[in-house]
Amino acid sequence: MEVTRQNFKDCLSAVYSAIDEADFLAIDGEFSGISDGPNVSALTNGLDTPEERYTKLKKHSMDFLLFQFGLCTFKYDQTKSKYITKPFNFYIFPKQFNRTSPDIKFICQSSSIDFLASQGFDFNKVFCHGIPYLKQDEEALLREQTEERRNQHANGLGTPYISPSSSKGPAHVPEEHKDFINRVVERVEALFTNEGKTLDLEPCTGFQRKLIYQTLSWKFPKGLHVETLETEKKERFIQISKVDEEESKRKKQQELAREQEKLNDAVGFSRVIHAISKSGKLVVGHNMLLDVMHTIHQFYCPLPENLPEFKEITMCVFPRLLDTKLMASTQPFKELITNTSLAELEKQVKETPFKSPEVETAEGFPSYDTAQEQLHEAGYDAYITGLCFISMANHLGSFLTPPKAYIAVRSKLIEPFFNKLFLMRIIDIPYLNITGPDLQPKRDHVLYVTFPKEWKTSDLYQLFSAFGNIQVSWIDNTSAFVSLSQTDQVQIAMNTSRYAESYRIQTYAEYIKGRQQEKEKLGQPARTWGEDGWVKPHYASSTASSGFGYPGMRKRSIGSVQGEQGSEEAQITDGWSHYSYPDDSPGGKKIRLDGGGQASDDPVESKTSEGWLKTTDASYSSGSSPASDEKSPEGSETGSYAEGTVAWQQAPTVPGTKGQKKKKKKKSEESTTSLFEVPEVW
Amino acid sequence: MEVTRQNFKDCLSAVYSAIDEADFLAIDGEFSGISDGPNVSALTNGLDTPEERYTKLKKHSMDFLLFQFGLCTFKYDQTKSKYITKPFNFYIFPKQFNRTSPDIKFICQSSSIDFLASQGFDFNKVFCHGIPYLKQDEEALLREQTEERRNQHANGLGTPYISPSSSKGPAHVPEEHKDFINRVVERVEALFTNEGKTLDLEPCTGFQRKLIYQTLSWKFPKGLHVETLETEKKERFIQISKVDEEESKRKKQQELAREQEKLNDAVGFSRVIHAISKSGKLVVGHNMLLDVMHTIHQFYCPLPENLPEFKEITMCVFPRLLDTKLMASTQPFKELITNTSLAELEKQVKETPFKSPEVETAEGFPSYDTAQEQLHEAGYDAYITGLCFISMANHLGSFLTPPKAYIAVRSKLIEPFFNKLFLMRIIDIPYLNITGPDLQPKRDHVLYVTFPKEWKTSDLYQLFSAFGNIQVSWIDNTSAFVSLSQTDQVQIAMNTSRYAESYRIQTYAEYIKGRQQEKEKLGQPARTWGEDGWVKPHYASSTASSGFGYPGMRKRSIGSVQGEQGSEEAQITDGWSHYSYPDDSPGGKKIRLDGGGQASDDPVESKTSEGWLKTTDASYSSGSSPASDEKSPEGSETGSYAEGTVAWQQAPTVPGTKGQKKKKKKKSEESTTSLFEVPEVW
Repeated sequence: MEVTRQNFKDCLSAVYSAIDEADFLAIDGEFSGISDGPNVSALTNGLDTPEERYTKLKKHSMDFLLFQFGLCTFKYDQTKSKYITKPFNFYIFPKQFNRTSPDIKFICQSSSIDFLASQGFDFNKVFCHGIPYLKQDEEALLREQTEERRNQHANGLGTPYISPSSSKGPAHVPEEHKDFINRVVERVEALFTNEGKTLDLEPCTGFQRKLIYQTLSWKFPKGLHVETLETEKKERFIQISKVDEEESKRKKQQELAREQEKLNDAVGFSRVIHAISKSGKLVVGHNMLLDVMHTIHQFYCPLPENLPEFKEITMCVFPRLLDTKLMASTQPFKELITNTSLAELEKQVKETPFKSPEVETAEGFPSYDTAQEQLHEAGYDAYITGLCFISMANHLGSFLTPPKAYIAVRSKLIEPFFNKLFLMRIIDIPYLNITGPDLQPKRDHVLYVTFPKEWKTSDLYQLFSAFGNIQVSWIDNTSAFVSLSQTDQVQIAMNTSRYAESYRIQTYAEYIKGRQQEKEKLGQPARTWGEDGWVKPHYASSTASSGFGYPGMRKRSIGSVQGEQGSEEAQITDGWSHYSYPDDSPGGKKIRLDGGGQASDDPVESKTSEGWLKTTDASYSSGSSPASDEKSPEGSETGSYAEGTVAWQQAPTVPGTKGQKKKKKKKSEESTTSLFEVPEVW
Repeated sequence: MEVTRQNFKDCLSAVYSAIDEADFLAIDGEFSGISDGPNVSALTNGLDTPEERYTKLKKHSMDFLLFQFGLCTFKYDQTKSKYITKPFNFYIFPKQFNRTSPDIKFICQSSSIDFLASQGFDFNKVFCHGIPYLKQDEEALLREQTEERRNQHANGLGTPYISPSSSKGPAHVPEEHKDFINRVVERVEALFTNEGKTLDLEPCTGFQRKLIYQTLSWKFPKGLHVETLETEKKERFIQISKVDEEESKRKKQQELAREQEKLNDAVGFSRVIHAISKSGKLVVGHNMLLDVMHTIHQFYCPLPENLPEFKEITMCVFPRLLDTKLMASTQPFKELITNTSLAELEKQVKETPFKSPEVETAEGFPSYDTAQEQLHEAGYDAYITGLCFISMANHLGSFLTPPKAYIAVRSKLIEPFFNKLFLMRIIDIPYLNITGPDLQPKRDHVLYVTFPKEWKTSDLYQLFSAFGNIQVSWIDNTSAFVSLSQTDQVQIAMNTSRYAESYRIQTYAEYIKGRQQEKEKLGQPARTWGEDGWVKPHYASSTASSGFGYPGMRKRSIGSVQGEQGSEEAQITDGWSHYSYPDDSPGGKKIRLDGGGQASDDPVESKTSEGWLKTTDASYSSGSSPASDEKSPEGSETGSYAEGTVAWQQAPTVPGTKGQKKKKKKKSEESTTSLFEVPEVW
C-alpha cells in the first residue's frame, strides 16, 4: 500500500492493526545518499573496529534523508498454514509544521539519486506528498508550547501571540502603527454596542496581528474571542467575536482540539515508528545497520556520541532485530548461499534445500510479484526480506528430530541471530553485537603502512612480495592496512622496513595505541554543524577527525575493485578464529535483552501515547540477558571466548511450547549447537 | 521548450542559434534551497555591507543545486515591430560521468522544496532526466586525461588502465590471479595462430582487466587492439582483436572520437552557459544576484574568497547584466511600481503608463500564456522577466523628444542600469555594483546593540523609546542594529547607556572597527568542507565566522515580519542620500566594462571552443570603462560622489544609430540625467 501525506491519516489505523496482529515485521529504508565524505570503500574499511565504523557512519551518513520507508507485516495463519502479509510503502518528507518549526536541510548524493532514478523511483511522491515527522524533542517542545497556551488561556492571558513582557502592561505600539491600532480599538468598542456578533478585520501583517492581540487582551480582558483565520488566498486576518463566558470556553476548547490534531499530523510518520517500537515485535531487515541508524536519528533523537550508547538506544527503540544478511552469512546458510545481496538471496531461498514460503497478501493490499522485481522500492524490499527470513527460519526446522516445516518467530532456533547487525566489508568482525560487547579479533598479522601519496596498490604488492600473500585495505591516500597471510612474517617485515625512508610500517597494536594516545592528547570535538534546522545537531565527536580525514580520496581498495560487480558484497575472508573479548566485558554495562518469553511485554516505558523513548530505565542495569542464563558448557569448546557473556554462544534448545521446557536430548543439542558457533564457522 | 538529458543533444544547435541571433537574453534559476545556516531574515540583514552579504551568500547558499535553468532569448523583428522569443527550460542534474568523476552532493532545504512542489515543480524530470554539467577545471582534467591517453597510444604504451610503474616491466600479478592471467595469455597466443580475428573474454573485475591490459601491452606491444566493452547487462568485458598497423590506428582514432563525444556530453549544460558568456549579449534577470552566483559556482569555478574577485569573474562570464528588480526600484519606475516582485511587476507593466510589449513565440516553441501564470518555472520566469525589461525600457523612450515607442537594447538610455545587481533588503545600499566600488552610505545614525538572549524586538523599542522612531535589524539572538531616525540622538543614547549592565551599545563605526581588528587578530580560515565531491571546495573564508554565527536564530527582524505577505519585498527606506565612496576607489583595481559599441565583441578570450574563462587577462587592469570616458559634468550635481568612477553617474545621451553620435540637446540631456541619479532618488 502506497502511503503519502494525502492518505496517511486514513491508513494509520490499518497500519496500527497490522503491527498489532503481526508475528514479525520487516522493514527497509531508501536514503538520499550514503556518504558525504569518503567514498564507500573508504567508509567501509575492511579493518574498521565497530566503534570506528559507527563513528564514520554517524559522521558521514546521517545528513541524508530517509525518504522512503518500507514496512511489511507478517502474520501466520494457522488454519491456512501460511503467512498473511501487509506491505506498506511510506513516502517521507520533512515538511515544516509552521513557520517557527525547523526548516530541515538534507543532503542528496548524485550517485544514489541517479541509482534510484534508474529503478523508477518517484521523487515527486516524496517531495510533493511525503509524510512529515518529528523527533521526540521536537514533539515535546510543541506539546509544551500547546500546554503553555492552554495555561495562559486558563489564566485569561489570552493568545498565542502574547509575550511575557506584554502581560505586565499595555502593548508598546510603535508610532507608525498607532493609528491602525486605535482604529481597531474603536471598531471593537462599536462591536460591543451594536448588534453584530463578529468583526472580521482586513488581512494585515504578523506584527500588526500581534499588536492587536496584545492591545485587545489588555483593553478587553473578558467578553471577546480573538482568532486568526485565513482567507481563501491564504492571507491571514483577525476575527473578533463577542462571547459570553460559556461560549468563550467552548471556542477555546475547539481551538485546542484543532491544535492537538494539527500536532498529531506534525508527528506524522514518527507515530508509525513509535508503534513498531512499542509493539516489541521482531523487526527483520537486510543489511540493516544504516536503516536502524537513520530511523533512530530521524524519528527519535540525534545519534549518541559513542557506540555503547547507540546500542542502548537501539534496544529501546527496537528490542529485537534480525538481519537477514548476517543470517545468510552464518552457518548453516553460509554453505548454501553464495551471494547474500537481497536480490540474489531472494532467488536462492526459492531453490532446494530451501522452500518458498507460503504467503498471501491480505485483502485490500496490492500484492507484489517477485517475478516482476521491484527492487529498491522500500515496501517491496521489506516484503522479500521477510520472505528470505521465513525460508531460512523454516530451513532450520529440517535439522530437528523430527524435522519441522514451520518454525515460529518465538522459536529458540532463531534466537542466536537476534540483535546482530551485519557489518559491511569488515574482514574479521561479521556483526555489530547490539546486546553486548563486540568481537575483538586478533590482528597480529596486520600492518599499518604510511607512504607517499603517489603509491598505488601495486606498489604495496611489490613492497611485501617477499612475505607471501597480502590483502590491502586503503585508509586514505597515504596509508593502508596490509594483512599478511602468515603472522610469523610480521616481525621480519618490520625489521626489513626499519631503515626505509619513503614509507613506514607499524604493527596494528602500535597503530591502535598511537591513535588512543592522540585521542587522549587532543580530547577535542570534531566539527559540528550548529546551525538551525540541520538534520542532525551533531554530538561532539571525539574520534572522528584524528587520523581519518580521507582528504581527496581517489584510490580504491582492492576489495572494492574486486567487488564492483556486486557492490553490496562484503569481502569476507575465511579462517579468522582468534577472537577475544574486551578485558572489561564481564563488568561492562549490561543491556537488557528481551527473551522470547517476553515477546508481548511492552519493552519501553511509554511517556506519551506514541511510545516515548526512555534510555535510563532501571531495568537496563539490573536484568541480565535471559539468554545468558541458559549458557551451555559447550561454550568452552570454542576456545578463546570469555564464558557466558553473549547470546550467540548459547546452545539453543528445541523450541518448547508456551514456556514449557522439553528435556534436552544430547544429540539434537549438539547438532544445533554446531550451527550457531558463529565466529568459528565464519 | 523543455530540455532534459534525453533531448539535450538534439536541442543544442537550436539553443546556440537562438543565442546568436538574440538582441538580449533573459535568465532565471530555481535552486534546491536558499540558506543552510541562518534563516533568510538573518541572511539578509538590512545593514549588511556588500562584502558581508557576498560572504554570507557564498557560505550559506552555494551547496544548494541550481536544478532548473530558464533561458529566454529575445530578438527584435524590425518588419513585424515585435520581439520574437525562444524560451528554454533546462533541467539540470550532476549525473556522474564515470566512476572516477566526482560524486556531487548537494543540499535540499525542505521549505524551498515544499514551495516548488506547491507550484507543480516536476522533481522527476530533474533527478531522472537532468542534464549533467562540468566546472571548467573538471572539464580541463578530463580533457587532459584524454590527451594523455592519446599520447600513450601514440607511444604504443597503450591503455587507459596502464600505470607509470607498469611501463617499466611486466605487471606484478598477485598470486591468486596468476592462473587467470596465464590462461588469458595462452588464449591470445592461440588467437595469433588461428583464423579468428577477435577474442571476447568473459566479464571480469576492474582489477583483473587492469592486469590483462598491463600484461598484454607488455607481452604483445604490437598487433593487438584491446578494448573494454559492456554486455547488455552492463557487465564489462575485454575484447582483443588482431590488427595490422593501419587498422590499429583507425580503431584507436574511433575510440578517441567516441571519447571526445562522451566528454562533450559530460560538459553538458555548461556548454549553454559558455555560449551565453561568449555571446557577450545583455543578460537580464530579476533579483539575479543568487542566479549569477550559482551559475558561476556550478558551471565555472568555485566562488572566490572576496567580493572584488567575484566582480571580476562575473564580468568575464556575464559582461553585461541587467537586474529588472533594481530597474523597477529606480527612478523613473520607482514612482510607478509599488511592488517589485516579479509576478506583480509583470502585471504592472501591462498597465498605463506602460505598454505590454509586442512579442511572439518563435515557431516550434510552445508559447507561454501570461494569463495562466506558470510562475517559478524557470523558463516562464525568464520569459516574463524579459517582458518586464522591454516594457520598462520602452517607457524610457517616452521621455525623449520626440518620444520613441521602441528602445533598442543598444540604447544609451538603459546603460545606467547595467551591471548593478539588486541587494535584497539592504536598507541603504540598493545594488551591488559589479563594475566598480560599491556605495558606502554613512551609518552615523546606526547603533550596534548587544543584549541578553531573552530580549525581543519590543524590548529594544522600549529601550530606545526616548530617542524617536527606530528600525531594528536583528543580527543574531543577542545583537542587532538599531537605526535612529535622528542622528543627533546617537550621542545621547550612547551617554545614557554608559552604565548599563544588561546591554551594550556601540556606534556603527566602533562596531566596524572592532570587527576589522578581530579579523586581523584571528586571520584564520573558517570551516571548509574538504571532502571529495562537494558542490564547493570552499575557499578559506576569513570574515565568515567572526561575530556572525547566528546560533539557533529564532527571532525575526521587524522587517521580515512586516514583509511576510510578500517575502520577496525589500524593506526599502527612503531618504538615505549620504553616500561616499571608499577612499581608495580612484586608485582601486579597475574592471573592464564593455560599452554599447563593443556589444558584438567577444569579451573573453576563449581557451576551448566552449569559451573558457580567463580572469587574468591584461586588459582588465589597463582598459578603463568606456562609460566613464563619457562622464558629464552633471555628475557633480549629485553632491558627494567622487567624479567619473562609475557608469550610473553618467548622463545618457539620446541613442545614436550604429555608433554615430547625435549632437546632444541640452534639454533632453537634463531630463534624462535626472532619471538616473540612482542614489538620490532611492
